[in-house]
Amino acid sequence: MEANYLPIKYHNGILTLLDQRKLPLEEIFIDYKTIEGVHSGIKDMVVRGAPCIGFTAIFGMAIWLRSVAETNMDEASKAINFLKSARPTAVNLAFELDRVFEIIKENFSNHSLLISKVEAFGNLQIFESEKKNRAMAKFAEEDLMKKSSKEKYRILTHCNTGFLACGSIGTALGVVQNLAEKNKIDKVWVDETRPYLQGSRLTAYELVKLGVNHQIVVEGAASYLMRTGQVDAIFTGADRIVANGDTANKVGTSNLAIIAKHYNIPFYIVAPSSTFDLETKTGANIEIELRDQNEILEYKESRIAPLESTAYNPSFDITDGKLITGIINENGIAHGDYIESLRSIL
Amino acid sequence: MEANYLPIKYHNGILTLLDQRKLPLEEIFIDYKTIEGVHSGIKDMVVRGAPCIGFTAIFGMAIWLRSVAETNMDEASKAINFLKSARPTAVNLAFELDRVFEIIKENFSNHSLLISKVEAFGNLQIFESEKKNRAMAKFAEEDLMKKSSKEKYRILTHCNTGFLACGSIGTALGVVQNLAEKNKIDKVWVDETRPYLQGSRLTAYELVKLGVNHQIVVEGAASYLMRTGQVDAIFTGADRIVANGDTANKVGTSNLAIIAKHYNIPFYIVAPSSTFDLETKTGANIEIELRDQNEILEYKESRIAPLESTAYNPSFDITDGKLITGIINENGIAHGDYIESLRSIL
Repeated sequence: MEANYLPIKYHNGILTLLDQRKLPLEEIFIDYKTIEGVHSGIKDMVVRGAPCIGFTAIFGMAIWLRSVAETNMDEASKAINFLKSARPTAVNLAFELDRVFEIIKENFSNHSLLISKVEAFGNLQIFESEKKNRAMAKFAEEDLMKKSSKEKYRILTHCNTGFLACGSIGTALGVVQNLAEKNKIDKVWVDETRPYLQGSRLTAYELVKLGVNHQIVVEGAASYLMRTGQVDAIFTGADRIVANGDTANKVGTSNLAIIAKHYNIPFYIVAPSSTFDLETKTGANIEIELRDQNEILEYKESRIAPLESTAYNPSFDITDGKLITGIINENGIAHGDYIESLRSIL
Repeated sequence: MEANYLPIKYHNGILTLLDQRKLPLEEIFIDYKTIEGVHSGIKDMVVRGAPCIGFTAIFGMAIWLRSVAETNMDEASKAINFLKSARPTAVNLAFELDRVFEIIKENFSNHSLLISKVEAFGNLQIFESEKKNRAMAKFAEEDLMKKSSKEKYRILTHCNTGFLACGSIGTALGVVQNLAEKNKIDKVWVDETRPYLQGSRLTAYELVKLGVNHQIVVEGAASYLMRTGQVDAIFTGADRIVANGDTANKVGTSNLAIIAKHYNIPFYIVAPSSTFDLETKTGANIEIELRDQNEILEYKESRIAPLESTAYNPSFDITDGKLITGIINENGIAHGDYIESLRSIL
């Protein structure tokens, strides 16, 4: 994918990020030429989504290597830790930076070769990510067509899983993009995704850029849409998938899966194998992050609720594996008894 | 109920309305002394909720009668039609005004007696409304205690059904208020109720005024709350209940009923018998109002979504009668096969 709306571009020591904090109403691209700049871009959430943060960090190290005459392992280690500190809880960020450190260790004697190896690694990661997303999209398309053979589909999705989060075509929204490229999308229903509105702000933006027909709905409309026969399938991403298929994802995902089951509508999870955690047995063992209540009580610092009221803001929920029609990764699709089938696609 | 936060007060030709457009952050009471003022109060939605609009109109006619020296039936008829025109689709408004017109016809020869009769009728309507709400709350409490005997309950509710909408204690929120008065409420979960946020703006305000422990949640959190055992029962109001128990209510209600069924949590509808329409056989025959998409795309005229995106905004949904644990009105509670049981409480 090569387009002028991509959230990350790197060329000759300059990293260009789309400022996702300003979306969807302003499209501002920021050039970064120093490791300090890249650190602030990650920390201040100019860039978001685990894959994009990882790619950004790799190019951040390339920029740092270009700024020094030769590679000193102590200095390199400090630079790695500096970038890790930008989002200390982002597992993917640390994982990618550790891989860059391995490349530095292996190539520190040849500085210019090292720079080009790190840059090539960053580009390869983006390329591999798109390849995986394309594979997932193909498995999803095949299964969907088996379930209901139609010329065009009406797909409902939740939260944000497209190129803004993933750099490449994305997971659940990658499925949509692949279908759209084959002219198989009638309409995408975009859940606005309270409280942070990732759907109406980010997914809608992606669909505008992709030129895909869509309408935004409140989450309360899910049953209405399904009852009136306006949804053919639901696709969402995942934050973590455990051994029995129980899946943690953005709060509201589990509502959709229960309602879809009630109306007998296919509900799919689409996520790379890095999201799978088969060491954890069930969703009951997944801790759910509680976020700042002001995400619910305010909009852009303007108070919605009474000053005396509080809010309870679980950011994720657990969808019961038994409610999921299929779990798709880059290797295939798992169905039925996930304890067996998930292992077969890892 | 007598309290300084009531949305409607009438005394000696002066009607005082709480300006509900400014809630929850500003409490402004407006005095009306002319029929033109009362008309604008209804039309501009200073007052809202079918019962409150009805009460307002009755006192509006009392104010008009006080402004004339004697009753001319032509003039009275014009005044009635003028008030009806403030919200032409509000059935309850027309219904109450027609009853006032009957009182005028019967008493037009004695002007001062007529004024006091209309005023007494307004007060009686409020009194009767509270009596009905109290009866519903008692039936709800009894059934809830049969279903799960606890010292204190955690109740989830949707949209706004308390004193702001009803003048008296309200329907679903009347159930909460009754339980709270008996110290049987642990916590109320307030669905924020997108897109218009009746929950976080109005229901939360009511609970603050009543001093009841509550927290606001996004609608996406419903499954999370029920899965983690934090909800004992759900109570909502209704806009229309048809012969088989199918119920039209604020969009999102049907989501809750499906999720509650999945987790085996009682889900109740609470509504006066004026909401029942047994001539209509099933929910499939109820037309759903589609509202302005900007309710979803904007917040306080500030755009949320991309300018190119549209939204789909069904304002109500249909909850399948089979998903409802009980339907409660002022005469009792209906269970099971609603085709039989609803008739028995009318």
